[in-house]
Amino acid sequence: MVVSQVQDIGEDALLQVLRDRLYVPVVSDILDAMGYLDQAMSADLRPLEPQMRVIGRAHTALTADIYERLEEPYRLEIEAIDALKPGDVMVACTNGSQRTCFWGELLSTAATARGATGCIIDGHTRDALRIVEMGFPLFCTGFRPVDSSYRSTVVDYNVPVMVGGVLVHPGDIIFGDFDGIVSIPKALLPEVVERALAKVESEDQSRDMLREGALLRDVYDRFGVL
Amino acid sequence: MVVSQVQDIGEDALLQVLRDRLYVPVVSDILDAMGYLDQAMSADLRPLEPQMRVIGRAHTALTADIYERLEEPYRLEIEAIDALKPGDVMVACTNGSQRTCFWGELLSTAATARGATGCIIDGHTRDALRIVEMGFPLFCTGFRPVDSSYRSTVVDYNVPVMVGGVLVHPGDIIFGDFDGIVSIPKALLPEVVERALAKVESEDQSRDMLREGALLRDVYDRFGVL
Amino acid sequence: MVVSQVQDIGEDALLQVLRDRLYVPVVSDILDAMGYLDQAMSADLRPLEPQMRVIGRAHTALTADIYERLEEPYRLEIEAIDALKPGDVMVACTNGSQRTCFWGELLSTAATARGATGCIIDGHTRDALRIVEMGFPLFCTGFRPVDSSYRSTVVDYNVPVMVGGVLVHPGDIIFGDFDGIVSIPKALLPEVVERALAKVESEDQSRDMLREGALLRDVYDRFGVL
Amino acid sequence: MVVSQVQDIGEDALLQVLRDRLYVPVVSDILDAMGYLDQAMSADLRPLEPQMRVIGRAHTALTADIYERLEEPYRLEIEAIDALKPGDVMVACTNGSQRTCFWGELLSTAATARGATGCIIDGHTRDALRIVEMGFPLFCTGFRPVDSSYRSTVVDYNVPVMVGGVLVHPGDIIFGDFDGIVSIPKALLPEVVERALAKVESEDQSRDMLREGALLRDVYDRFGVL
Amino acid sequence: MVVSQVQDIGEDALLQVLRDRLYVPVVSDILDAMGYLDQAMSADLRPLEPQMRVIGRAHTALTADIYERLEEPYRLEIEAIDALKPGDVMVACTNGSQRTCFWGELLSTAATARGATGCIIDGHTRDALRIVEMGFPLFCTGFRPVDSSYRSTVVDYNVPVMVGGVLVHPGDIIFGDFDGIVSIPKALLPEVVERALAKVESEDQSRDMLREGALLRDVYDRFGVL
Amino acid sequence: MVVSQVQDIGEDALLQVLRDRLYVPVVSDILDAMGYLDQAMSADLRPLEPQMRVIGRAHTALTADIYERLEEPYRLEIEAIDALKPGDVMVACTNGSQRTCFWGELLSTAATARGATGCIIDGHTRDALRIVEMGFPLFCTGFRPVDSSYRSTVVDYNVPVMVGGVLVHPGDIIFGDFDGIVSIPKALLPEVVERALAKVESEDQSRDMLREGALLRDVYDRFGVL
Repeated sequence: MVVSQVQDIGEDALLQVLRDRLYVPVVSDILDAMGYLDQAMSADLRPLEPQMRVIGRAHTALTADIYERLEEPYRLEIEAIDALKPGDVMVACTNGSQRTCFWGELLSTAATARGATGCIIDGHTRDALRIVEMGFPLFCTGFRPVDSSYRSTVVDYNVPVMVGGVLVHPGDIIFGDFDGIVSIPKALLPEVVERALAKVESEDQSRDMLREGALLRDVYDRFGVL
Repeated sequence: MVVSQVQDIGEDALLQVLRDRLYVPVVSDILDAMGYLDQAMSADLRPLEPQMRVIGRAHTALTADIYERLEEPYRLEIEAIDALKPGDVMVACTNGSQRTCFWGELLSTAATARGATGCIIDGHTRDALRIVEMGFPLFCTGFRPVDSSYRSTVVDYNVPVMVGGVLVHPGDIIFGDFDGIVSIPKALLPEVVERALAKVESEDQSRDMLREGALLRDVYDRFGVL
Repeated sequence: MVVSQVQDIGEDALLQVLRDRLYVPVVSDILDAMGYLDQAMSADLRPLEPQMRVIGRAHTALTADIYERLEEPYRLEIEAIDALKPGDVMVACTNGSQRTCFWGELLSTAATARGATGCIIDGHTRDALRIVEMGFPLFCTGFRPVDSSYRSTVVDYNVPVMVGGVLVHPGDIIFGDFDGIVSIPKALLPEVVERALAKVESEDQSRDMLREGALLRDVYDRFGVL
Repeated sequence: MVVSQVQDIGEDALLQVLRDRLYVPVVSDILDAMGYLDQAMSADLRPLEPQMRVIGRAHTALTADIYERLEEPYRLEIEAIDALKPGDVMVACTNGSQRTCFWGELLSTAATARGATGCIIDGHTRDALRIVEMGFPLFCTGFRPVDSSYRSTVVDYNVPVMVGGVLVHPGDIIFGDFDGIVSIPKALLPEVVERALAKVESEDQSRDMLREGALLRDVYDRFGVL
Repeated sequence: MVVSQVQDIGEDALLQVLRDRLYVPVVSDILDAMGYLDQAMSADLRPLEPQMRVIGRAHTALTADIYERLEEPYRLEIEAIDALKPGDVMVACTNGSQRTCFWGELLSTAATARGATGCIIDGHTRDALRIVEMGFPLFCTGFRPVDSSYRSTVVDYNVPVMVGGVLVHPGDIIFGDFDGIVSIPKALLPEVVERALAKVESEDQSRDMLREGALLRDVYDRFGVL
Repeated sequence: MVVSQVQDIGEDALLQVLRDRLYVPVVSDILDAMGYLDQAMSADLRPLEPQMRVIGRAHTALTADIYERLEEPYRLEIEAIDALKPGDVMVACTNGSQRTCFWGELLSTAATARGATGCIIDGHTRDALRIVEMGFPLFCTGFRPVDSSYRSTVVDYNVPVMVGGVLVHPGDIIFGDFDGIVSIPKALLPEVVERALAKVESEDQSRDMLREGALLRDVYDRFGVL
């Protein structure tokens, strides 16, 4: 694909470019350069496995810790999952809860069946090894074997949430790999992709020069990237 | 084994059922359902390796940070290790110490020789790769290369301890895997195992339906598990 | 090599003994015994991979979080990298910054070209999987995809720094493996190596006796190590 | 009042005994002795002023951090306040939110008008000096000048909540002073008051002996309190 | 003063209106309503005394923790203080340092001599009681008796800084009282003051109705403020 | 007293000079200048009241959190208190426990009777207002109404302890006021006092010049203190 074409292609095709030709740090650099400095989530959100990557549209949910089991403990959670559309990434804000566990194998199975391409939680999961076996991209802050129903409930979904310090709106583009996760405001995607593709080239040239033993001073003066 | 038989078998056989047919989240769910909501340890206790599991009876030790080397630095620690019995899991409470390191290869070797089946620490270990080679199940909060003798001492053993937010009594049943660790009060083990075996079946059926594309709403209405 | 010879060999040869015959915990024990109790870094600095080890002379850098991009954002950082000499380990103090990211693939490439043998950061890296592929030894506290230029700047290098709770002077010997990282004051290296080699032998004998089933009480009384 | 009479008097009279003759530590000791070890809130909940004390029945509210202003931002909060009854203490669980601010002068005024005797929050207040002027007993974790409507919402009230590490049920008796806050399960109040009155006497006698210069060993052996 | 006049008066007069007729929470509410949701500093910045208030233009400084005393330890710090102008508030970002202490009596004296009206630090002070005696408005996170010269240095001043989670630019308007501190972007000051004066009236009317016993539901429906 | 005489007077007289003519920051500066950079405790240890000061010889105790009441819950604690001598300051290390409460009115009374001049705890107290009434100097990290006997026990006393990040040996000189607490190694006291008295003079002269409007640059160039 020629770089200049990215403005003309649709969102699905742009997501495919993210997947095939880009990596999270270069996208983060472009967001910085465009003045969007708060788009990279904090370092405590990690993928289940080094090679896991997540790419898709944010479908959000917000939970609150509670202290008794509700009569219909999973009502909005079930709604939120069943509302997932192909290409969506579930982005769940637990406000950093250390006591509950939002996700597990059955939810991964249900989300996969709806076409979701991954899940981001500022909280815990369980059934982690089975989710790895499924190949379902999951980024979370850790593991707890507990059920959510005695400990938290979904209070809303399809609303803005704060995850890993980033304000995510429904429909924003989620891009995560081993280096972290960025949320790309929907309207910026074409420009972000175009500029990121260009920066990849400069980085490749810098790397080559450095491998050959050039001083960083000279390489940076020439390519202006680090 | 038929589920209804679990009430009639001994503790060792029940531990074998935990090992062969159950996993930690389903046991946690049953403890919740029985009203025991504080039996799952916090997410910062992690196994050395993804496949590590620990099953056995809690043999506890309690340490305190100190600020000079004692004359007999390891007196109670040695006693605590030498008192381990086959099937025991060492459960060590350092009150979350960030400076000391409670465990290492020699203690793993000694514990294995006594028949211990693993170790849980709310603190650090060292010699971690050698312990992995030994296949000794160890769950801890991290790694420090230091010796304990200048930094902490065992002040008591065979006493109640708090590890990962869970009050563990000597003899309680420890069950840990990649998703976390639960402590099962000794007297509850038969009922926990029986009910957990039943729940596994419901989960299997739910998973099958979800894989076939059913909505979560319908699956939950039918099986009542998530 | 005979143990008694270590006093007569040069620093590079001693580093080779660290690499070939020693491990971090035994060196930490010797530093303790010599009265140096604050030489082991905190548990949040981890290697990118279990088998990664780092050995070399500390070359330090100190960064500060900032809140606007400077005109010459990387001036001292480039100087610090280009000043690396063969056998150096970059030791970067970010004062524990959670927002910036000090290191990445291009810096790893540049450092390798200068002969550096690794990097220790009390902060984040990016491009982690590529650094793993390069086999460059990197110990850090986590991962963030962001560029440093909007978030921090190198304010000095070749100065004392505090990393993981350890005061590191330029030229101190850095020794890290999966169990953690120690900084060995330069002048102590010969004695540390000599005494560590001796302790390895005692540990080997203790391990053998424990494997054969001896009580820890008897083993410790005989060898005095744990 | 004679101690043995406390069993025969009503809850309001018992609250009056708390107010007139008891203090929080002695009540905490009795709860400990009765086996209720988790009734004292954590040290980060502080009264606005040293002399502030709070006594009453828990009327609970639970909030969740949110990330956009709702259409009816205060709906359940207003309901919760308007439902306060004379002698109630508002007990608000924000799950330890650091960003919102649950309370202020207008809510203090409204609560006072309904007969509430104070408020406990595991979060922030504003208008603190005016609340001090009103003499309204308020215990909280700090101060933020912000409005809650952009930052949190009441998701339920009249439900069990966890505040300062204590599970509080509606109707439990809240007793707080400069030393901290205990929640007394409703049914225990008569026994707690009776035993606390007795312990006050032993403490008075111990204090007298200590003032006269007796050794702690002798005083403790005689009165058994510390 | 009539509210509609505030647009026509200068910045100094507007600061006087803040001082005489407004309080921090009402200004925070107006900033929220104007879409500026991140202008209130975190709750750990506290005034030395309950009645202390700070009003003025931000004059910023940025420090970094260091680990050896510099040859000219106070060079930029002295420059930063000597550059203070009448009506300035020193706003010092230590990046939350727990080890250094940025401020003290001599700096307060020097700042007062330059006409500064206060100081905000996301770190420690010393000589606190003497600063209270001077009546110099100081907001900080705590107290440490140490000198900065062995522990930190000013790396820049008159630059954007992040203090208590708020990005402050030189010249922004700082307004702090017992409820917290807001930073008002310079250009917004006239509108903020005008709208805040109007909101004060609504709050006064709400308070009156609530004192007379009205339900919060009715008061909010009428005045729309809480 | 003439400064040059301090070397010839006894420890009690030096303590009196601390009390009458010095303050904690100036002593901290001298310890820094003598190369003792880790003698000032962390900012979370606070006096019960602004005017409280503590001066005396460290008498240490070390506690460990426990999880059942011991048969003799206060054995070593009573011993530790009864062993206090006139001029001693109790320095209690709880390893930062958040759950227990080490101190209270009866212990303050007993300590006062033995001649102790204060208490420093890296943990909680109770009966705080009564201790204020007694005028007993107490520095602690907060308040909890609970008894220690179910939560911690003294495991040793008269041993080195770490309090607020400072290693304190029995007999070290404790000096605390509103700005914080320093521990002065016993042997350094004469030199510390002598040099501190000299520095007080320079600070007084600097303050005078600054009050008269001099630039900090000129004052520092002349007196060399800040």
